[in-house]
Amino acid sequence: MTRPLDETRVEAVRTGFAKQGLMHTLGAQLGEIGAGRCEIDLPFAPGVAQQHGFFHGGVVAALADNAAGFAAYTLMEEGRQPLTIEFKINFLAPAKGERLIAVSTILAPGRRIFHASSEVSAIRDGETAPAAAALVTVKSVATVSEI
Amino acid sequence: MTRPLDETRVEAVRTGFAKQGLMHTLGAQLGEIGAGRCEIDLPFAPGVAQQHGFFHGGVVAALADNAAGFAAYTLMEEGRQPLTIEFKINFLAPAKGERLIAVSTILAPGRRIFHASSEVSAIRDGETAPAAAALVTVKSVATVSEI
Amino acid sequence: MTRPLDETRVEAVRTGFAKQGLMHTLGAQLGEIGAGRCEIDLPFAPGVAQQHGFFHGGVVAALADNAAGFAAYTLMEEGRQPLTIEFKINFLAPAKGERLIAVSTILAPGRRIFHASSEVSAIRDGETAPAAAALVTVKSVATVSEI
Amino acid sequence: MTRPLDETRVEAVRTGFAKQGLMHTLGAQLGEIGAGRCEIDLPFAPGVAQQHGFFHGGVVAALADNAAGFAAYTLMEEGRQPLTIEFKINFLAPAKGERLIAVSTILAPGRRIFHASSEVSAIRDGETAPAAAALVTVKSVATVSEI
Repeated sequence: MTRPLDETRVEAVRTGFAKQGLMHTLGAQLGEIGAGRCEIDLPFAPGVAQQHGFFHGGVVAALADNAAGFAAYTLMEEGRQPLTIEFKINFLAPAKGERLIAVSTILAPGRRIFHASSEVSAIRDGETAPAAAALVTVKSVATVSEI
Repeated sequence: MTRPLDETRVEAVRTGFAKQGLMHTLGAQLGEIGAGRCEIDLPFAPGVAQQHGFFHGGVVAALADNAAGFAAYTLMEEGRQPLTIEFKINFLAPAKGERLIAVSTILAPGRRIFHASSEVSAIRDGETAPAAAALVTVKSVATVSEI
Repeated sequence: MTRPLDETRVEAVRTGFAKQGLMHTLGAQLGEIGAGRCEIDLPFAPGVAQQHGFFHGGVVAALADNAAGFAAYTLMEEGRQPLTIEFKINFLAPAKGERLIAVSTILAPGRRIFHASSEVSAIRDGETAPAAAALVTVKSVATVSEI
Repeated sequence: MTRPLDETRVEAVRTGFAKQGLMHTLGAQLGEIGAGRCEIDLPFAPGVAQQHGFFHGGVVAALADNAAGFAAYTLMEEGRQPLTIEFKINFLAPAKGERLIAVSTILAPGRRIFHASSEVSAIRDGETAPAAAALVTVKSVATVSEI
């Protein structure tokens, strides 16, 4: 149903990420990739903030969503692509600090539907604090026809 | 419990929006504001896209979230600020087109908790198509102490 | 992609509902069924309450979920069955009254994925008040193999 | 902000649970209670099933929601009560077996808002399998006036 993670797929994750204009715009970077696991990091900048100087919730959500999509992608069959169907995010605390880290893990890989849990933390003065928890549903779609 | 919308509050919404670095970064603009209602627009650009040239889901979510926060803010008492506690978004169709419009409406204004429904549409060749539906929970917090 | 609603499918909805032990246990009844739309009603009883005498949130959620599944089923191809992948519900107000009504409408019917919006209202002294809003994702599965 | 768990509060949880008609109706039982943690168990019966003989998703959701409310309650100040504002649940696999166990843990206790993560597992032939993951937002309300 799912595939082992190999270098080809890791490269495909990096290529997919590099093609996402939004990640460039936000200044996000891919972190560690594992089978059913993906990490995305983002340094703080005024351009990703809300009006009080915290990371904007939309940015926190974008990382949680995107990490889930790539975590699911690591397990998908050849020729399939991840598409987020929906997600939900709870903001546990205002995301304040010099850096955000989103880590997503696949809870249940299906044939077509992948359930992911994403955790986003803020690093502030070197200390890590939970910022958000998300549940994300990702569908595996054929590269062209279904999107 | 809630307040009528007047010019002072409309100005406060515009000021709050203008202070959000992320909205500048994405190129988003405030649209119409009403009592318990807020609209945010975003023209397409490669910098807000995912790898297939659609609006990135994280951008769709950021607009849905932000419109809800300001829709709630229009109804809040003096000296209170909106803080999104959590939100959920279903992607109804890939968001493809020249423009995104997010409209959020308050379903139930409470003393401290505001439930909002946000709809995001994509305008493509002048046609409007639903792209996402979200439910957002916004809390009213005191300007400084609770954030 | 989807099918017109005919008497055969309406009968199939009624048969499926009648087979759900939980609906009997709660005392729920099917209301009107349309293409992409389903209504479920429930009279109040102490056995569906929480500790303060309101309808239990779990009951409100069960109706919202179930109405969505059957609303999706009205549009599914022959030989397919609805399976809820996930749902989200916001409780707009305590559900107090003599009766609950859940109405679900399909926002976007896909080939396999159906997005539904469910609204649950409480009838109290004859007045209808919104109790909850839900977004539900339903998958169409083959009768046996995929469940 | 929160309180240590003592016997008085454990008793209050048991009393609250015992007053919920729905839990009696479903046949659910309180399991272990800890500070910021609550477990609810449910044996299978046809009266909690859907049409294919699995636990109904509405029942799975009701346990996830209820466990979160009581987990939050263990940490609340004197004279406050839990009220679920909203929750989200992903069904990881059909819930089939002789027993359901829902365990909820508080991720972030706030002054008024508690974020909980609930996991529901099905026990089948003695084996435990994940059935659902939920994120629940619980508000602390004054016993009478705010409900």
